[in-house]
Amino acid sequence: MAIDWDKASRDAQEIFRAALARVDPIALLGRCLAIEGGKLAIRTEYGEARLRLDDYDRIVVTGMGKGSAQMALGVERVLGERVSAGLIAVMEGGKEVLSRVAVVEAGHPLPDLRSLRAGGAILALGKVMDERTLALVLLSGGGSALACAPVEGLSLEVKIEASRLLLHSGATIQEVNCVRKHLSAVKGGRLAQALAPATVVSLILSDVIGDDLDAIASGPTVADPTTFADSLEILKRYGIENRAPVTVTNFLRRGAEGKAQETPKPGDPVFSRVKTLLIGTNREALAAAKARAQELGYETMVLTSRLTGEAREAALTILGIGKDICASGFPVKRPACVLLGGETTVTVCGTGKGGRNQEMALAFLAALSRAPKDGEDLLFFSASTDGKDGETEAAGALASSQLLARARAAGMHPQRFLSNNDSYNFFNACGGLIQTGPTHTNVCDIQILLVP
Amino acid sequence: MAIDWDKASRDAQEIFRAALARVDPIALLGRCLAIEGGKLAIRTEYGEARLRLDDYDRIVVTGMGKGSAQMALGVERVLGERVSAGLIAVMEGGKEVLSRVAVVEAGHPLPDLRSLRAGGAILALGKVMDERTLALVLLSGGGSALACAPVEGLSLEVKIEASRLLLHSGATIQEVNCVRKHLSAVKGGRLAQALAPATVVSLILSDVIGDDLDAIASGPTVADPTTFADSLEILKRYGIENRAPVTVTNFLRRGAEGKAQETPKPGDPVFSRVKTLLIGTNREALAAAKARAQELGYETMVLTSRLTGEAREAALTILGIGKDICASGFPVKRPACVLLGGETTVTVCGTGKGGRNQEMALAFLAALSRAPKDGEDLLFFSASTDGKDGETEAAGALASSQLLARARAAGMHPQRFLSNNDSYNFFNACGGLIQTGPTHTNVCDIQILLVP
Repeated sequence: MAIDWDKASRDAQEIFRAALARVDPIALLGRCLAIEGGKLAIRTEYGEARLRLDDYDRIVVTGMGKGSAQMALGVERVLGERVSAGLIAVMEGGKEVLSRVAVVEAGHPLPDLRSLRAGGAILALGKVMDERTLALVLLSGGGSALACAPVEGLSLEVKIEASRLLLHSGATIQEVNCVRKHLSAVKGGRLAQALAPATVVSLILSDVIGDDLDAIASGPTVADPTTFADSLEILKRYGIENRAPVTVTNFLRRGAEGKAQETPKPGDPVFSRVKTLLIGTNREALAAAKARAQELGYETMVLTSRLTGEAREAALTILGIGKDICASGFPVKRPACVLLGGETTVTVCGTGKGGRNQEMALAFLAALSRAPKDGEDLLFFSASTDGKDGETEAAGALASSQLLARARAAGMHPQRFLSNNDSYNFFNACGGLIQTGPTHTNVCDIQILLVP
Repeated sequence: MAIDWDKASRDAQEIFRAALARVDPIALLGRCLAIEGGKLAIRTEYGEARLRLDDYDRIVVTGMGKGSAQMALGVERVLGERVSAGLIAVMEGGKEVLSRVAVVEAGHPLPDLRSLRAGGAILALGKVMDERTLALVLLSGGGSALACAPVEGLSLEVKIEASRLLLHSGATIQEVNCVRKHLSAVKGGRLAQALAPATVVSLILSDVIGDDLDAIASGPTVADPTTFADSLEILKRYGIENRAPVTVTNFLRRGAEGKAQETPKPGDPVFSRVKTLLIGTNREALAAAKARAQELGYETMVLTSRLTGEAREAALTILGIGKDICASGFPVKRPACVLLGGETTVTVCGTGKGGRNQEMALAFLAALSRAPKDGEDLLFFSASTDGKDGETEAAGALASSQLLARARAAGMHPQRFLSNNDSYNFFNACGGLIQTGPTHTNVCDIQILLVP
């Protein structure tokens, strides 16, 4: 039976749109927040909180991240004039017109002077808070660059240099974050300290695989189990103790000797007034995608929300699963939909233009072209939920044997473009780019494998 | 709840043994072959055949491959004295004492003079066959090296050199096989021609992902859709037309001009007397593993029989799935078992000792050690069904947080051993090697993820 490729492609787009809609910040806040009988009720898939509004004289909204302005808009739509004031730091182009909350743009992925000013301003908010203040902290991906504040005595430059050295040393992101938290007046629970004695409710849109609360935006309202001594140990482990800026190592040493204030640890009294709740995750986006795929008639499996590793290798695994579905009907029967989420990486060897999602789709196509048997009925779709895959204006790309035939007719070989990491130009020339524009949300990437 | 690691480890081993038992050649032939009312009935998961024994004066058994001697033993056990004679080519150490069928050892992975002699002897068998001969051809992995016969005028050396050049050029295995088939008097359906006018029943134990009949042992009894012109085009595509031995290119050119005999094509009358049946595959081994895992109480999913790509990257995907099972209960609920099969590759950068299965287990452990959250309850097992992983005497290895703790206590870091492709020495020192000895079968690899 011939595949209706137009329908399959529309189905994939619809499934992706359902995922995006589920994690749209305005909609998320609309679902999570409610005023009920004099209380502010906050309910998420991951927990809930209820606060008597009479206990507070004012509600202040703050936060940072790519989706935080839209989150603030969602808060304003529910709480309206109950919001007294606020300040949110976002990326360039991410501003929203808000009634009560100020929005400032700052640097990303590297923090800049604007990030410093934003960090300082957010910490300053804390100085005017009292026990009758409710602080809603809205965090999303990118937050750690958008609002930052080095500990006293350190410059932004040395902090950036220490991060850069660590990232290039082979340290894990957990190790990098450990050091960063000990150089910051915002991260690692310090924002929670700065906002005390206010009650803090921190709402998080997660762009971190596994949704570790202390990793998203470097956990400004979450206890930090790591220590100054750990940070020093990490610098030693990767042999950068003597290459890191001397002010950094000196500060960490002083900290390890008890001469600088540690980050607040689990059990610290400050957290008795802090509640941190996930509101949107890749997993939820996948659940919405699954529901839509089932409505469209697909037998649907969510395989994982934690796809990592090299994009082109992940494509091979997904292609293999698709071929098994075609040849043998497992792990799901046709019409089948397999959903994955996560964030892969691309080891760049070429000079082309692309992103991890487009590269995965291109690798899928290249592998399909080398061994087409059992793979002719597959449609593969991979896109970033923030609408921006790598340094391109596309969200991702779509691959199928139909597209492969089109590429071949145009004399374009997937493998050649893949070897040059040039997925964008491949899909731009022969169709298959997925364009959403900015989505104002970010819960990593989503992959959709359809076997109609 | 603490994991009973001993039990989990035993469960994984039992599940693997169930997979091996399902594709044991003697057992397979015992299930597939039967004498029923004067007929030889052959029934496999993939098809069947029934032959009136009265139509034949003799049954001749031939074939080649790592498991083919055991397959012949299975045939003798069912057919006994009905087997007239035969000849099987196997790897060194793979001999069996058979009553009626001669077994010869030959070179692998590179063919040698013994392979030439075996190929010649098998082709010579054909010369004594008539219409009242039933030829049972038993094929398994490695067959193409174990019995070979270059076309007239070519030496084994130039044929090997042409293969070597192709394998290093980036050509796909399909492309390599296309050229090989056109240089061989056995492969690409030519054995079927040589055995005519006998009736040929070819029984295949598949070590090829996707079980393409024309790929296993290079398809000696299967029609070859590729042509001399394709072969020449492939040499050109990879720029080795002028580097390949001149006798090879000259022969392919003569073939393309119609001056040498093409391989038999689909629809060729020779195949009217040929039946080719898969008898054992990775997929079947996985089905048996699934049945055993379910008996042991695990909710079990067979994810794919086609896992390919870089071993250490595949490990990340599997770890991600396991963490989702722990954190969120999808794609299967605990106690969960996820089964995969296939054959990954290792890009060797280090000087260590190992195999693709041990490398995958070590990469799993290294990734677990970098980000242990949600992964502490996972047991991962990866092993080759032939009992030999790479150039080691182990079949594979097993990874868990228990093993990680043991390694750490011994001061061994998974990532360091992984960087040196030294998985064997890691697992040999801290436990975790899987030892089966030779299994006399080969349906690629099997991975087992247990979440007790």
